[in-house]
Amino acid sequence: MKFTINRSQFNHQIINVQRAISTKTTIPILTGIKLDLSKEGLTVTGSDVDISVQTFIPQEDVDNELQIDSTGAIVLPARFFSEIIKKLPLDQFTLEVLDNQQVAITSGHSEFKINGLDANNYPHLPEVSNTDQLQISSDILRQVIDETVFSASKEENRPILTGLHLQINQDQLLAVATDSHRLAQRIVKIQNSGDSDYNLVIPARSLKELEHSLSDNSEEIKLSISENQILFEFDNTMFYSRLLEGNYPKTDRLIPDSSTTKLEIDAKTLLASVERASLLSHASRNNVVKLVIDSGQKQVVLYGNSPEVGTVEEAVKVDQVEGEDLDISFNPDYLKAALQAFGETKIKLEFTAALHPFTLKPLNDDHSFIQLITPVRTFN
Amino acid sequence: MKFTINRSQFNHQIINVQRAISTKTTIPILTGIKLDLSKEGLTVTGSDVDISVQTFIPQEDVDNELQIDSTGAIVLPARFFSEIIKKLPLDQFTLEVLDNQQVAITSGHSEFKINGLDANNYPHLPEVSNTDQLQISSDILRQVIDETVFSASKEENRPILTGLHLQINQDQLLAVATDSHRLAQRIVKIQNSGDSDYNLVIPARSLKELEHSLSDNSEEIKLSISENQILFEFDNTMFYSRLLEGNYPKTDRLIPDSSTTKLEIDAKTLLASVERASLLSHASRNNVVKLVIDSGQKQVVLYGNSPEVGTVEEAVKVDQVEGEDLDISFNPDYLKAALQAFGETKIKLEFTAALHPFTLKPLNDDHSFIQLITPVRTFN
Repeated sequence: MKFTINRSQFNHQIINVQRAISTKTTIPILTGIKLDLSKEGLTVTGSDVDISVQTFIPQEDVDNELQIDSTGAIVLPARFFSEIIKKLPLDQFTLEVLDNQQVAITSGHSEFKINGLDANNYPHLPEVSNTDQLQISSDILRQVIDETVFSASKEENRPILTGLHLQINQDQLLAVATDSHRLAQRIVKIQNSGDSDYNLVIPARSLKELEHSLSDNSEEIKLSISENQILFEFDNTMFYSRLLEGNYPKTDRLIPDSSTTKLEIDAKTLLASVERASLLSHASRNNVVKLVIDSGQKQVVLYGNSPEVGTVEEAVKVDQVEGEDLDISFNPDYLKAALQAFGETKIKLEFTAALHPFTLKPLNDDHSFIQLITPVRTFN
Repeated sequence: MKFTINRSQFNHQIINVQRAISTKTTIPILTGIKLDLSKEGLTVTGSDVDISVQTFIPQEDVDNELQIDSTGAIVLPARFFSEIIKKLPLDQFTLEVLDNQQVAITSGHSEFKINGLDANNYPHLPEVSNTDQLQISSDILRQVIDETVFSASKEENRPILTGLHLQINQDQLLAVATDSHRLAQRIVKIQNSGDSDYNLVIPARSLKELEHSLSDNSEEIKLSISENQILFEFDNTMFYSRLLEGNYPKTDRLIPDSSTTKLEIDAKTLLASVERASLLSHASRNNVVKLVIDSGQKQVVLYGNSPEVGTVEEAVKVDQVEGEDLDISFNPDYLKAALQAFGETKIKLEFTAALHPFTLKPLNDDHSFIQLITPVRTFN
């Protein structure tokens, strides 16, 4: 195996592959990056078992300046290899496999000789048949991930809750994440060329890595789903993630269908108030803020306190207050994350009682995007 | 004590004060920031015993929008106070001391009540008489710090070596730092209005914090020195550092006054080569690279290796090679740091023997800036 390639093109192409490679793996060959050179081009693979990413650098794309002297395959230590490539002196480098899996990397007057590993020992990527294919634009996929995965659980005691639950039918995708204290749900349209409906749970971590891998350009992403794997295809990249096993809890019944108190408010204004209140609640052991709604006076006040540091109170600017008076206490970090997902927009908050979950929704949309937060009981 | 002030001006002024405040201190009141309001303006103080910083916000400067209702003093928890100020909703805030050292901070509809501490319990700042004053421009002071302090020791086993040694006479300042493996020495001109010469050692950490506090503008810094303190005055800021006690070792005799092999080279080119070689030496237990100088062939080759990962060799582009052939091995990180201090310039490297220290100097200057590196013995 011997080839010469444009260094910055190569670097650019393998960033997504490196994202799949963990230094913490217990399987030594997975700390490596696999290079596989055919006459058509160079295939680069990285994997940490949960996530595998493969990218193809075609010979026919002249920007790659890929000159193939002889085909073959090798596995190189990912971290060193990428640092070496970054620091080479010229715009091109040549890579050649010598005897005993030793690899020479040359650029200008610089020559590295690195110990590689036999590519035959690299695990096979999962097989995902792509007879049924779904399509979704990268913009919408990024949005769904941004608006939901932060609500997935970070605790491993109920592994299924560390994932995003997707229910896909003929024309829509419903995504839900919950850590049992809060929930985020988003419904979007999708193109489904097959007849199948799907019900699957993707690890939140996989989706965060996928999001980083998606370019800022809007492009169509192809999804293929098998029993325990999902494959996302875009550009020349294949992104595989394992699926979580088990039944995701039923979440529809958690979302209240009526309310007794309703606020209309600017999401960014409320976020600034909650950030101030949480300065003090963070200094307190139980990290709780209190919202007091006085419907008659059209007044909403947010309170935070820490016995050691002090207190904060603030009249929150609201556009509309309706319904019954209410005192409700909750973790401000859940509200902050929910509000950040809305960005700069008008929203409505709907409450039923001090100890029942409340919801956040876009002002004129009861259906496509819902965030839910469970309050906490306080004794003051 | 009650005042109203422009929030961003206040923030801007106290950044340097906060730099002196450590969260790790064992003296609780030093986790606080002291505010002291007179009719002339607001004095703000922070200290971690080693470093103390005091800044003055004058009432007469209209940009500060400082309205004084009543004078007084208080100590507030520094971290919370600065986070609160950052997040307040309006461009001004009002601070008032209530009963029991409680402090109200209001801005718009937001009101914080924070528990303060009695300012009478805050330690006094060191007394540094300023009869004899030295002056140095901030540009030159920053340069001296940048070019030397990285060579000070990070180990506490010889505390005196964790400082920068300054020898000041009528018109020059000589600064030396060494960790006993390498040394950096810079000589600059200085204005000394008194008759005294000085010989002192300033902790490297103090100088790094001082460097962050100096603005990018060129300004004159006043230095006052007492037995165990140094005071730097600039803008409305007083920056105090304790001095290290003890005798700094004699370093002049370490610097060789002749050489048998000499290279002329571009500092940045050599830096890039050393960075590549150190990729492999860093993966090795002893972190050593080898420079082989073939004077007849005018060839200089740099070698790095790691038994596990592999090897690198590189012909280094040199402008001039003179003298005897030489193989010399050293820690590449020392050479990297030395070369970074030179920036983009031509330099000369002078060697006497494989186990004797070698020096780096600007190409046409044997005197004002010298870096010295001690080689290591290798057995391969």
